[in-house]
Amino acid sequence: MIEMAVVGYGYWGPNLVRNFSECDDTRVSVVCDADATRLARARKRFPSVEGVTDFDEVLRRPAIQAVAIATPVRTHYELARRALEAGKHVLVEKPLTMRVDHAEELVALAKKNGLVLMVDHIFVYSPPVLKMKEIVDSGKLGKLFFIDSVRINLGLFQHDVNVVWDLAPHDLSIVDFLLGKLPRALSAVGGAHAGNEIEDVAYLNLDYGDGLIANFHVNWLSPVKVRQMIVGGSDRSLIYNDMDPSEKIKVYDRGINLGEDPEKRRQVLISYRSGDVWAPNISNAEPLARLAAHFADCITHGKTPVSGGESGLRIVKILDAAQRSIKAQGGRVML
Amino acid sequence: MIEMAVVGYGYWGPNLVRNFSECDDTRVSVVCDADATRLARARKRFPSVEGVTDFDEVLRRPAIQAVAIATPVRTHYELARRALEAGKHVLVEKPLTMRVDHAEELVALAKKNGLVLMVDHIFVYSPPVLKMKEIVDSGKLGKLFFIDSVRINLGLFQHDVNVVWDLAPHDLSIVDFLLGKLPRALSAVGGAHAGNEIEDVAYLNLDYGDGLIANFHVNWLSPVKVRQMIVGGSDRSLIYNDMDPSEKIKVYDRGINLGEDPEKRRQVLISYRSGDVWAPNISNAEPLARLAAHFADCITHGKTPVSGGESGLRIVKILDAAQRSIKAQGGRVML
Amino acid sequence: MIEMAVVGYGYWGPNLVRNFSECDDTRVSVVCDADATRLARARKRFPSVEGVTDFDEVLRRPAIQAVAIATPVRTHYELARRALEAGKHVLVEKPLTMRVDHAEELVALAKKNGLVLMVDHIFVYSPPVLKMKEIVDSGKLGKLFFIDSVRINLGLFQHDVNVVWDLAPHDLSIVDFLLGKLPRALSAVGGAHAGNEIEDVAYLNLDYGDGLIANFHVNWLSPVKVRQMIVGGSDRSLIYNDMDPSEKIKVYDRGINLGEDPEKRRQVLISYRSGDVWAPNISNAEPLARLAAHFADCITHGKTPVSGGESGLRIVKILDAAQRSIKAQGGRVML
Amino acid sequence: MIEMAVVGYGYWGPNLVRNFSECDDTRVSVVCDADATRLARARKRFPSVEGVTDFDEVLRRPAIQAVAIATPVRTHYELARRALEAGKHVLVEKPLTMRVDHAEELVALAKKNGLVLMVDHIFVYSPPVLKMKEIVDSGKLGKLFFIDSVRINLGLFQHDVNVVWDLAPHDLSIVDFLLGKLPRALSAVGGAHAGNEIEDVAYLNLDYGDGLIANFHVNWLSPVKVRQMIVGGSDRSLIYNDMDPSEKIKVYDRGINLGEDPEKRRQVLISYRSGDVWAPNISNAEPLARLAAHFADCITHGKTPVSGGESGLRIVKILDAAQRSIKAQGGRVML
Repeated sequence: MIEMAVVGYGYWGPNLVRNFSECDDTRVSVVCDADATRLARARKRFPSVEGVTDFDEVLRRPAIQAVAIATPVRTHYELARRALEAGKHVLVEKPLTMRVDHAEELVALAKKNGLVLMVDHIFVYSPPVLKMKEIVDSGKLGKLFFIDSVRINLGLFQHDVNVVWDLAPHDLSIVDFLLGKLPRALSAVGGAHAGNEIEDVAYLNLDYGDGLIANFHVNWLSPVKVRQMIVGGSDRSLIYNDMDPSEKIKVYDRGINLGEDPEKRRQVLISYRSGDVWAPNISNAEPLARLAAHFADCITHGKTPVSGGESGLRIVKILDAAQRSIKAQGGRVML
Repeated sequence: MIEMAVVGYGYWGPNLVRNFSECDDTRVSVVCDADATRLARARKRFPSVEGVTDFDEVLRRPAIQAVAIATPVRTHYELARRALEAGKHVLVEKPLTMRVDHAEELVALAKKNGLVLMVDHIFVYSPPVLKMKEIVDSGKLGKLFFIDSVRINLGLFQHDVNVVWDLAPHDLSIVDFLLGKLPRALSAVGGAHAGNEIEDVAYLNLDYGDGLIANFHVNWLSPVKVRQMIVGGSDRSLIYNDMDPSEKIKVYDRGINLGEDPEKRRQVLISYRSGDVWAPNISNAEPLARLAAHFADCITHGKTPVSGGESGLRIVKILDAAQRSIKAQGGRVML
Repeated sequence: MIEMAVVGYGYWGPNLVRNFSECDDTRVSVVCDADATRLARARKRFPSVEGVTDFDEVLRRPAIQAVAIATPVRTHYELARRALEAGKHVLVEKPLTMRVDHAEELVALAKKNGLVLMVDHIFVYSPPVLKMKEIVDSGKLGKLFFIDSVRINLGLFQHDVNVVWDLAPHDLSIVDFLLGKLPRALSAVGGAHAGNEIEDVAYLNLDYGDGLIANFHVNWLSPVKVRQMIVGGSDRSLIYNDMDPSEKIKVYDRGINLGEDPEKRRQVLISYRSGDVWAPNISNAEPLARLAAHFADCITHGKTPVSGGESGLRIVKILDAAQRSIKAQGGRVML
Repeated sequence: MIEMAVVGYGYWGPNLVRNFSECDDTRVSVVCDADATRLARARKRFPSVEGVTDFDEVLRRPAIQAVAIATPVRTHYELARRALEAGKHVLVEKPLTMRVDHAEELVALAKKNGLVLMVDHIFVYSPPVLKMKEIVDSGKLGKLFFIDSVRINLGLFQHDVNVVWDLAPHDLSIVDFLLGKLPRALSAVGGAHAGNEIEDVAYLNLDYGDGLIANFHVNWLSPVKVRQMIVGGSDRSLIYNDMDPSEKIKVYDRGINLGEDPEKRRQVLISYRSGDVWAPNISNAEPLARLAAHFADCITHGKTPVSGGESGLRIVKILDAAQRSIKAQGGRVML
């Protein structure tokens, strides 16, 4: 049984306390938050948990083996670093940090101290994304041609970052999970409309080489909520619609037929074929429960997390490059 | 009654012959196509029409006042130029030409000779787009923040151009109709997957200044057909879904509330409000019939067409800039 | 080549002329309609066709082997009877007749004279319904439990019958095609709201025995257009949505698990399982072209039509019983 | 502050405890359930609540003013009667009882003892249904022509009753709320497929007189979940789709135009008009919180509940008549 502290009891913290409490291999002994009102709320809902306002108090207790950090993004680096230095395993909310060098430092520190560093890329543990990964890995889609991701809605959920840092980590971590590598370059554009400098609409275009481009639309001003990703392949294509209550993943047995004749190809004499559509059954298991179990498993058996520091670092590198491209008004940035 | 010739009897030509035949103010006396089989087909369907294979034959006849050109894009400039030189009014399929200087020459020539030059930006005459224009002009949406356009499907319809020149003119002409001006800059990326150099997936991002960005996704490889445009404004937003059989335009009385306090704005303390949705009734009048009547009206009364050479030129400028940006891998191009 | 006459050139007649003209094995030499304006329209569109106002003229010509009747329902019996007596094969619009005895007489007459009598149950020749039939016959659905059919929209298309006689023949002929038998009983209710005695909303409930019930909702007052049929089975279920542009048939691998234990069954301790959804690719062949070819094939090779007089008679029996049940305010009528 | 006991801590009980605990005017002091495991669960989640296994214990306590009963349907009558006899106000899960005479007795008893008797017709307190009521009462729809209700899904939620008694009370209570009266007659049919006598598919047709018919489809075997009600009127129609996350209520400004001329009416020469669609903004307030506050308000101020015993009795009368009609295979039953 791994004893844990959850740091930050705002929007996401209660979910962490609940899931790590219900997990067979972990228990939450401490909740840490500077806000006493929040601690009172935590205590009321989880009477067996102790509330502390001082993070040092968490670090001082040897019984606490692991720390889950759900505080504002700008504090991630400092808190995670100090926890790793104190010999605690660490789970951090996405994105891992706000700076690439900070993320690199955390990854190196975890490695040096033999500790698990994991990022809460929650979608990577969700049933539809696991099904996508299974389908992509099976080769059923053929060669990947393009990925088109749309995550738009009205309103924002983070208060210290722009729409790219708030929403894109979800989709970037999904694509990172599917492909397991950095793009070679990207370009991004964005707009700020609320009278401040914080972008609320943005488009990211990632070039993964070998013909594969991935585009991301993130938006806080959309009148409708869309959560959709198209993965287009040479043999089949897939659509992941997270808003569909019953058919979140659909595989389309459709595509273009490339002629053998180079002359015809030059003339774009391409035909296409239509085929069946298949929507696999998707479990409704809770992603955070699976993440909690995986975190415990990595700690106990020295495994490398699916969403470890390395993937967290790749996402931060992409976010950082996107930010620079937006400031350069869409210029291409190499990664 | 304006006597006309239709040049090119492929995919679109029959629709032009039918609509200009049914229009009260025009009649089609000649169909011109180099392919005798096509002429036979035209003659069978429209027995009163004469078929000629030689374009000069069309130009030589003084009775023919106007020419509608529905040939491959690469031939538009030559045919339109010669028709204007011969004193004929001209309607050209979209896009107007493949080169900016060619489009400029046609615009200047039409002006010099006092002739109507019109581009077949068909959507500009469609009931849902006219409704959009009415709503945008009414100021109901407030200040425009972003436009997001998606036109994707499986398969291609043009054989001598890429997906940008094939599909984007539709959406660019709609946005040109709404805004009536060129963007100040754009960036674009694209990918070619069919073993040739012709892009089949592309994204265009247009910067209209004053915070307004317009993004266009065009794609020949999508397993599903989407034809959608979101127009996001400060007061309300609008979605045009051309695939919806009954509610093509929806106006959402939703948005963000900007605080008066600059300090709060800096902290992104934005609230948002939810409101009613309204789908105005949209007529199902045929756009091409309206275009035909408008072409005749412009000729008869010396009016400037809604989709005249000037707007055709703006679209060609955008397409040309997009092509250059794609070749430069997403670099920003000024317009 | 079978020479044909098409009788009635209103809403559906032009489709019959076009399809029997394009069919390799038939040609239309005569169109018969009492209305000279309609004949002029037919002649303009189909210059090779002769127009006659007198039905006797059609009957007198020995060269005419077959007659397609697309006149108001109340005239079907008289025209079909006289054509069969004159030795012509007959295709009749749905429903076959307005009275059961009339339908029986036509079936007997066709049999006696060795002629083909076919009803234009057009959906039976449509690709999605053929796919349904294939799936039902394959046994994939298991034992059929229920059929729920909804065909509702705003407005009416027939002027001499109520909504039951207008819309229900489509769905009844589909179910007749799937099951090939009469229900043992039915009950029906309806309402008339337009200030006349003609029902514009109705529900039919057919009892096919062995636990299978089929319900039909037909409605001319619905603000939305729905064309949907659910076929629920013990192993899988199927939904046919004719309004879906791309996935008209969906097979759901879902159902209830019946316990073996009778005690548990009595207590309704039923679990259910969720599974994949599969949307087979559906061709977009034109149903009427297939019907025309089948009619010709039946005439040439003495085959029994899929939608022959017998199935037309079964549909009339159901419609007649439904009408009697409605007048009896929902009473059960045996068939 | 009204002190309450919640009786039955199965599927719905926890929601009652939570909402009556959070309500400003009520508090839950006791949870009663024969199952000790359930009581332990209740105590864990609501530490301030006492658990008792004996219902008499609840009745004996004078401090307990009101009882909420969420036990199996067959026990409602006995428990509610004893609570009313003991001078407690009573809230009962739907349906009120399994027999009409039992419901009548409870209504009379509550009246005699001056107590509030309320049925948990939860939908009557939900924002979309309140909006429906507002629209119907405003007269915007004109004269009501038909109501078509569909509530179908896979699986069942009640273990001692059939699909009619399980699902139909929701829709019947909504229609009762809209119309406030009993139908004059009904007919119903159903089928049982799970090897027991318990219907899992059923259709109810209610005749409200004056041309208004209301049809209800309830089904435990449907592969898809549908929760939809169409209310068709002479001027406008309304669709309530409870599965739509953002546009639960849509008002369609469409209908038929009745001619003035009786001759034309007889000939069904009806035209129809198409118009705008409007989806009012719907709050997402929790219905059960509103119900709890209303229950307290009725007790405190002697008000008559919106979903009082009278409406509960009307629903039981309809359910009872439907059951008799099903056993009579669809025969018409007067109410």
